Amino acid sequence: MRTLVVLLLLSFSVEARAAGSKPKAEKTKASAEHSSSAAFSGKLLVVPMDGSHWVGIKAIAQELGRRGHKVTVVIPEVSMRMGPGKHYDTLTHTVPYGQDHIDAIMSMHKDVLKTNQPFMERMQVKYNQILKIVDFIHVTAESLLLNETYISYLAQQEFDAVLTDPMVPTGALIARKLGLPIINLLRGIPCSLDMKSAGCPSPPSFVPRFFTGLSDKMNFKERVINTLVALIEPLFCRLLYWRFNNIAHQFLNEEVSVAEVLSDSDIWLLRIDFTLEFPRPLMPNMILVGGINCDLRKPLPKNLEQWVSGKHGFIVFTLGSAIADMPEEITSVFLEAFRQIPQTVIWRYTGMVPDNIPKNIKLMKWVPQNDLLAHPGARAFITHAGSHGTFEGLCHGVPMLMVPIAGDQPDNAARMENRGVGVVLDITTMTTESLLQGLNEVINDTRYKENIQRLSALHKDRPVDPLELSVFWTEFVMRHKGAKHLKAAVHDLSWIQYYCLDVIALLAAIVLLFVILTVKCMKLCLQKLGRKRKQD
Amino acid sequence: MRTLVVLLLLSFSVEARAAGSKPKAEKTKASAEHSSSAAFSGKLLVVPMDGSHWVGIKAIAQELGRRGHKVTVVIPEVSMRMGPGKHYDTLTHTVPYGQDHIDAIMSMHKDVLKTNQPFMERMQVKYNQILKIVDFIHVTAESLLLNETYISYLAQQEFDAVLTDPMVPTGALIARKLGLPIINLLRGIPCSLDMKSAGCPSPPSFVPRFFTGLSDKMNFKERVINTLVALIEPLFCRLLYWRFNNIAHQFLNEEVSVAEVLSDSDIWLLRIDFTLEFPRPLMPNMILVGGINCDLRKPLPKNLEQWVSGKHGFIVFTLGSAIADMPEEITSVFLEAFRQIPQTVIWRYTGMVPDNIPKNIKLMKWVPQNDLLAHPGARAFITHAGSHGTFEGLCHGVPMLMVPIAGDQPDNAARMENRGVGVVLDITTMTTESLLQGLNEVINDTRYKENIQRLSALHKDRPVDPLELSVFWTEFVMRHKGAKHLKAAVHDLSWIQYYCLDVIALLAAIVLLFVILTVKCMKLCLQKLGRKRKQD
Repeated sequence: MRTLVVLLLLSFSVEARAAGSKPKAEKTKASAEHSSSAAFSGKLLVVPMDGSHWVGIKAIAQELGRRGHKVTVVIPEVSMRMGPGKHYDTLTHTVPYGQDHIDAIMSMHKDVLKTNQPFMERMQVKYNQILKIVDFIHVTAESLLLNETYISYLAQQEFDAVLTDPMVPTGALIARKLGLPIINLLRGIPCSLDMKSAGCPSPPSFVPRFFTGLSDKMNFKERVINTLVALIEPLFCRLLYWRFNNIAHQFLNEEVSVAEVLSDSDIWLLRIDFTLEFPRPLMPNMILVGGINCDLRKPLPKNLEQWVSGKHGFIVFTLGSAIADMPEEITSVFLEAFRQIPQTVIWRYTGMVPDNIPKNIKLMKWVPQNDLLAHPGARAFITHAGSHGTFEGLCHGVPMLMVPIAGDQPDNAARMENRGVGVVLDITTMTTESLLQGLNEVINDTRYKENIQRLSALHKDRPVDPLELSVFWTEFVMRHKGAKHLKAAVHDLSWIQYYCLDVIALLAAIVLLFVILTVKCMKLCLQKLGRKRKQD
Repeated sequence: MRTLVVLLLLSFSVEARAAGSKPKAEKTKASAEHSSSAAFSGKLLVVPMDGSHWVGIKAIAQELGRRGHKVTVVIPEVSMRMGPGKHYDTLTHTVPYGQDHIDAIMSMHKDVLKTNQPFMERMQVKYNQILKIVDFIHVTAESLLLNETYISYLAQQEFDAVLTDPMVPTGALIARKLGLPIINLLRGIPCSLDMKSAGCPSPPSFVPRFFTGLSDKMNFKERVINTLVALIEPLFCRLLYWRFNNIAHQFLNEEVSVAEVLSDSDIWLLRIDFTLEFPRPLMPNMILVGGINCDLRKPLPKNLEQWVSGKHGFIVFTLGSAIADMPEEITSVFLEAFRQIPQTVIWRYTGMVPDNIPKNIKLMKWVPQNDLLAHPGARAFITHAGSHGTFEGLCHGVPMLMVPIAGDQPDNAARMENRGVGVVLDITTMTTESLLQGLNEVINDTRYKENIQRLSALHKDRPVDPLELSVFWTEFVMRHKGAKHLKAAVHDLSWIQYYCLDVIALLAAIVLLFVILTVKCMKLCLQKLGRKRKQD
């Protein structure tokens, strides 16, 4: 389907790849539908990130287009999920790989899930997978940024702002090149580069770091671990972004790091919410839009109606867009467990269909996850605890059985378990019995349902819908050409100045000098007193 | 008028003051008007602070009452500004002073403004004034808190939450006694007790402290000053609140400080906005509602129409509710300057009316300040730069001539001047010439008007109106019996733990040990090597 759409693109003219290709633009209905009633109509450039990161960006792009802005989304000619939409234009750029390369990367998750691998072998597989993904990201970025014809085409469009996902700083680099304000949408950068760039304090005493699985209430040992992780974060950032730092030098022709480029950001739309996240300091230009995808709901397709209307309700089972297939031994654990429960199971599954599938299971290549979770018959949600899925489960108040696999998923899962709204299992060591027990808990122990409904009520009780809020702040930046008045004056400070270490050193020196002088004076006095006594 | 209203109160029964009096309740139309259509109807206790602090609290109380909540406002039987309203009930409590005592305190400002006083004498006058105000605040608080009959009446009312101004922690103490969640409305506590209680980081490298007049961009010397002020802030807090700490012990029967009581607060509604304030870190339970009074606009009274319709426009001149009178020598400076300008001047003035008042001046005992500023003919606003007035000037885009007198006024004025929207003068040293020059600048130099209109546009471009937002979060706390999920886990941490000083000490010790061991090892190796060479 996607390939067909790409073939239908209204191309300008395609030059040789090596010399740089001009952008291919797809004119959708968006332009025609631009409402003349809109008070302000801006031009927005959107540089999204692929995979699940696309969901939130697409929602904002669609809504802005619908409100009469001219929205242009830059996407590679082949991708995992990105594609055209009703209310925005897409502008594709060439990449030196094909769909098969993407499929190969997607299927690598299956190898990671193999249960009978020795530890070292599994680490090797994981490492190779990360290397391949990182390489894929860099190659995609380079083929866009170093395509001079394409970039100068963008420069001519006179955009008002760039909406992007800063995890991959391609959009931020383009914004700097074109002198445009930046709106970031993100869940969080693992090495806290987002917080550092926004100048946001993150005291390690109550702000747990990524991947630590810690909460905001830490004992001494946990605080030591968290502080150590906080101390090595800058190093981790360098590792993550060294190649992008090189690309930045090459692309911008200036000695600037990704951190500095991101520190120019005007607005940070954070896909977090404190019903899930631990409360932490924020900066004035950080806007919380966790749960942005909750209200994007459509009616269920007809073929699913019989599956959701059973008296025992149903279970939704998806492991996100990245994992649609899994090793046979894990599949059979799930199948065996599902055979023994009265609920129907709607399972997103793209692998080989095994024999003897129980009657209560419906396998589908794609499921309308949010619409299913919104159905009152949904009893449980088996999920990898990706941030989008977690928010959808929370939004509709469905207890979760979580099998986190990578990235922020273990952290998300730990937080949900901590709030008593779900159970966490290790997918590689899970047995039919432990799965059954977990399902039994989240379905039949009413506390899970009560807890998630209470949390859901808190989450949804907000003055402005997160999508509306995202659109508002994007429009704000377009209207005012930035949001400078919300940026803290931390970017000219070195870290020594930021923490006032120079001031502390001066004050300590003064105190020390005072103490030394006092001691010397006292000694002198005592000596004189001693001499006087001797003379007496 | 106010006395009449008090006399009309529906009193329960009044016992001897010494023994504690029962509350007098005024039943207004509020109860009758409670809308049955409201989805949720709560019971809110409001414990306001007098003076200009009353404005914002009153607006929220009115709006909540209008939406169908039962709002009860606790006020002393005599006060500066507080009184009944259409949509809330008032519950008065006795105080051991009369209106004459309040009038005496109000008129003390005049003494502070005397221009020909020696420095030491002026300081003495200021000190006496502060002592009297502080005593007034404590006596008022004690007469409410130690009135057992009154407090037990409040306890029986089953309120859902307390809305209060934490600068005077009476409301917070009552909330703790009755086990109720707290919503605070404030501009900021000078010793940063608000930030400390909310666990909000305030790095002295870019967060200027109260009274320093510093901006967010500081050189080394300024950072030293700011850090020193930050270091003595806890001491200043102790000085400010030691008597309230004693009242807290006595009232609550527990060893708890005001800081601890305030750290239980659920929501902090901060009357700040980053068009005026320097961007700084915030906590998730801090909601910005600066400019809450901007939209509370009424049409101008008829008798003012001829004064605002002149072709040269008009000047609004008020020095806030506390200062309505001033020494003759200052009055004559203003009169002489106004005589020489073409604009009309609408001046809030309650003192002796001098002879020979120029024809372009209208003196009034009270002026509809916000409504006048909203009029397109307003050319300049002469103000003491109190926070409410500053926001009103900003809201309506009127350039300001500022004569700050006390409290946060010098800081507010410095920030406005820093943004090029006004001129600051010292009221005690000002001459007719300097005043004329200042007025000429703000009225005729178009940059001032342009700057404040740009700033005004930024200030008013927000997703939710600040009054609406205040009401939302107050209702949120009433609905959910608090907002625990927004409170950072900092309150069980000592300051050593908060700053991870224990962790740093441990890590430093390990590093030191490692260095010592390495050095020792190397020494040993060198010694052995030396011996071996000797043997060779």
